[in-house]
Amino acid sequence: MSPPEKKQKTDSYTLYYWPGIPGRGEYIRLAFEYAGVPYTEKLNGNTLMSTLRNPSKIGHPPHFAPPALELPSGKVISQTTAILNHIAPKLGLAGELGSKLAGEEQLSAEDRERAEEERSTVNQLVLTGMDLCVEAHDVHHPIASSKYYEEQKDAALERSESFRAERMPAFLTHFEKVLSTNPATMDSERTFLVGAKTTTADLVLFHVVDGLLFAFPRRMAVLKKSGKYDDVFALHERVAGEEGIKEYIASGRRKKFSNGLFRHYPELDGEK
Amino acid sequence: MSPPEKKQKTDSYTLYYWPGIPGRGEYIRLAFEYAGVPYTEKLNGNTLMSTLRNPSKIGHPPHFAPPALELPSGKVISQTTAILNHIAPKLGLAGELGSKLAGEEQLSAEDRERAEEERSTVNQLVLTGMDLCVEAHDVHHPIASSKYYEEQKDAALERSESFRAERMPAFLTHFEKVLSTNPATMDSERTFLVGAKTTTADLVLFHVVDGLLFAFPRRMAVLKKSGKYDDVFALHERVAGEEGIKEYIASGRRKKFSNGLFRHYPELDGEK
Repeated sequence: MSPPEKKQKTDSYTLYYWPGIPGRGEYIRLAFEYAGVPYTEKLNGNTLMSTLRNPSKIGHPPHFAPPALELPSGKVISQTTAILNHIAPKLGLAGELGSKLAGEEQLSAEDRERAEEERSTVNQLVLTGMDLCVEAHDVHHPIASSKYYEEQKDAALERSESFRAERMPAFLTHFEKVLSTNPATMDSERTFLVGAKTTTADLVLFHVVDGLLFAFPRRMAVLKKSGKYDDVFALHERVAGEEGIKEYIASGRRKKFSNGLFRHYPELDGEK
Repeated sequence: MSPPEKKQKTDSYTLYYWPGIPGRGEYIRLAFEYAGVPYTEKLNGNTLMSTLRNPSKIGHPPHFAPPALELPSGKVISQTTAILNHIAPKLGLAGELGSKLAGEEQLSAEDRERAEEERSTVNQLVLTGMDLCVEAHDVHHPIASSKYYEEQKDAALERSESFRAERMPAFLTHFEKVLSTNPATMDSERTFLVGAKTTTADLVLFHVVDGLLFAFPRRMAVLKKSGKYDDVFALHERVAGEEGIKEYIASGRRKKFSNGLFRHYPELDGEK
């Protein structure tokens, strides 16, 4: 599949996020990288929180946490999925119809309604992908995100068992069913969650699978070998090779997983 | 403040959710109740999951979990915040500008952009409110949502300490700052998160505060008495008295908190 039309924009989107880690900011970066739309980053970690929480610096309302995105208008939006839902039509990532919401063309009321529905479906799948990401984080921080992993290791070991045995299969089964029953890709590779066009939902699922492969390599190898989630793993491979993403990965600019949302603690990965 | 214009609609929205509990479905109910827009509920708990997960019954894509909302077109959307973001303009709950997105009037590209920004800001605050709701749930289920509370009571006791000491004040401080710095309400009561009009964000914060008052009555009494969150508690009171919500509460139709997202275990409530 060819990527969507690349929009030429000025350097007018600015991402506020922690420097050096992929974290939640990575979901926003992937959208811009895929679309080929330039963005800059505010990288001063020391003043990030005090800036985002100060309405006189950031406008109203202030923000609870990064990532936040400054739009070309100067308005700043936070919350990963709110940002993605806001920019998806503009970046051509809200589906075939959903992406028309940002076009020049005036849509009829009926077309607008169908476009909004597709955009919301993409948002729904983005949210489910982010739920899996948050659960993967909570495995190593089940008690308090303000405490070290070592202080909550016993609870983490316990939580990892149900995550590996129940939650990972539940989410992967869901996404596999979404892919395998997609009426738009019945006669081709089933690697698109919505329609036959890359959306923010595909990019989120790509990154979450990537994170799980880093954090739970043994468990993911077993799940892959089961053959039950072939379309999910095919989506991961397809997105990694897409124009924009391929170059981003090859550039070395993509932050590596380490001690962020996705962490590799072998003791939490169970399977031998 | 008077409520937004009540739209007369046919009985064409259907909520799919568990019967008998407020849960995440309540955030959707509150939006319809406030707006005075009729909706029905699919209440057969036995077949709820199998219906939502079956594309031949529910369309594509299938859903991970309820709540889900069937729109007048027949399209079904799930994920609480995706549903709220979808219906907010239609129910007049996406802010002064944001709600114009659903109107008959054709907006200019510039006005549409400002309207989308307001809608996304409302979505952002809805998401932060829901994050607090999820953390309140995870206090009593830190290890696995599939296990009983009694099986994870020690971890719950530990998690409740940081929730009460750090997380509750952090979220309430954020919402208090959003309310107290809202430029649209400088000269009046500061009980609107966005502009001077009730949005889904206000309704979500109302319900989360309501849930916290149920689950952590002693802690909430201390926080209220501190005087640091007066605008948050005033919003809670204001929304409870709004037309639509007042009648809903008085009707007895509103499901009571019990063993759902918000649970009252005195041992998790700390303060004496």
